[in-house]
Amino acid sequence: MRILLTLEYDGTDYAGWQRQLNGPSVQEALEDALRRATGTDTRITGASRTDAGVHALGQRAHFDTASSIPPDRYPLVLGTLLPRDIAVTQSVAVQDSVHARFSAKGKEYTYRILNRRSPSALRRRFTAHVPVPLCFEAMMQALPMLEGTHDFAAFVAAGGSQKTTVRRIDRINLVRQGDEIILTVAGNAFLYNMVRIIAGTLIDIGKGRLDAGCVARAIETGDRLQLGATAPACGLELTRVFYEGGL
Amino acid sequence: MRILLTLEYDGTDYAGWQRQLNGPSVQEALEDALRRATGTDTRITGASRTDAGVHALGQRAHFDTASSIPPDRYPLVLGTLLPRDIAVTQSVAVQDSVHARFSAKGKEYTYRILNRRSPSALRRRFTAHVPVPLCFEAMMQALPMLEGTHDFAAFVAAGGSQKTTVRRIDRINLVRQGDEIILTVAGNAFLYNMVRIIAGTLIDIGKGRLDAGCVARAIETGDRLQLGATAPACGLELTRVFYEGGL
Repeated sequence: MRILLTLEYDGTDYAGWQRQLNGPSVQEALEDALRRATGTDTRITGASRTDAGVHALGQRAHFDTASSIPPDRYPLVLGTLLPRDIAVTQSVAVQDSVHARFSAKGKEYTYRILNRRSPSALRRRFTAHVPVPLCFEAMMQALPMLEGTHDFAAFVAAGGSQKTTVRRIDRINLVRQGDEIILTVAGNAFLYNMVRIIAGTLIDIGKGRLDAGCVARAIETGDRLQLGATAPACGLELTRVFYEGGL
Repeated sequence: MRILLTLEYDGTDYAGWQRQLNGPSVQEALEDALRRATGTDTRITGASRTDAGVHALGQRAHFDTASSIPPDRYPLVLGTLLPRDIAVTQSVAVQDSVHARFSAKGKEYTYRILNRRSPSALRRRFTAHVPVPLCFEAMMQALPMLEGTHDFAAFVAAGGSQKTTVRRIDRINLVRQGDEIILTVAGNAFLYNMVRIIAGTLIDIGKGRLDAGCVARAIETGDRLQLGATAPACGLELTRVFYEGGL
């Protein structure tokens, strides 16, 4: 039986989603809990291989099991076995053709900028702190150029191994909420560090270091140097993964 | 010169505000940072001695110093010396007659209940998790009985050493925000664990274990047993301290 999980995690203390040698991963913590619950080694596949320090409100992941645990009981069963910074919020049985990663039709990310002079003790894990005042209006000007289908070659960190760098951004929004500026981006797929490069570019536009036109120039030329710094991981959250059929 | 600070902290990893032997305290961390900044041992007095695990968005504290650091620079100066779960958000020079604790005219606390089946990995530090559905309307019914000046003898944990248990609650509100139920209480002063006993009682009313009338009975009789459990520290935040004169 194939089970599809919905996961929430605080990525602060993890080296990312994917199992690796240089630190604890979310995948490893989940697979450990699942082994203790079912008595069997089980491989879990995530929709997104979130980076070190990146959070998730709605990561999805699947695994195949012969366990007799009822499909909807994994939040409860794994809840007692997982560290408190990982939570399973939903579980459902799906057809074997459903794959957490390859069946995903799109994803939504949220990036939170704390824009005030002093850092925040309460929100330090989930926001990127920018102490100088950002010009919200200038940042807004860059958004329409990002929407739609473009070659985002300039928006990828070195080391990406994708066949094509064409991606489609369906929605991109920026809202001011108290002392935070919150970016949400939904699209069919994202390149490595793409959202953090968008966020870092918007921050540099807000600071007046770059003009909003840099986004169009970067899309045209594919030149990473047209854009701003890669914004820190702590501000980023994988908010939702979209599938067909109401999953 | 007397300096009045505004402080934000994540109380999760502290044994409370007050310096003590059985664990790290916020006061100790601040006094350590201040000693490193000024070269002098300085005692800091807080407005509220928040308990182990309780957070603050707007704690206030004062100290006297002969340092040449400009009064408004302490957020920056202490910011580099403090652990990331404590932040100084404001500092101002005040008259020597201003005392963080004794000059306070009132305080506001916020208590956050996460009311959904699964725990939250992202909000685990700042909410109390109640997995069974709470009846919001029943909880609301208890609020009017709490407002005003009453003898809150039933709302105090054993070990309080106050002369009188009469306190005044100026405002008490409950709002539903997504999957959270958020309590805010403002009053002239609070007894030891008073807000956590109010929150715990509201939770038990929401569960149907207590009826809303228990609050009136507890005020009348002074009987702690009429009320619910003391809700966990992690849901509580000292939101604001009120002074006269625009401080």
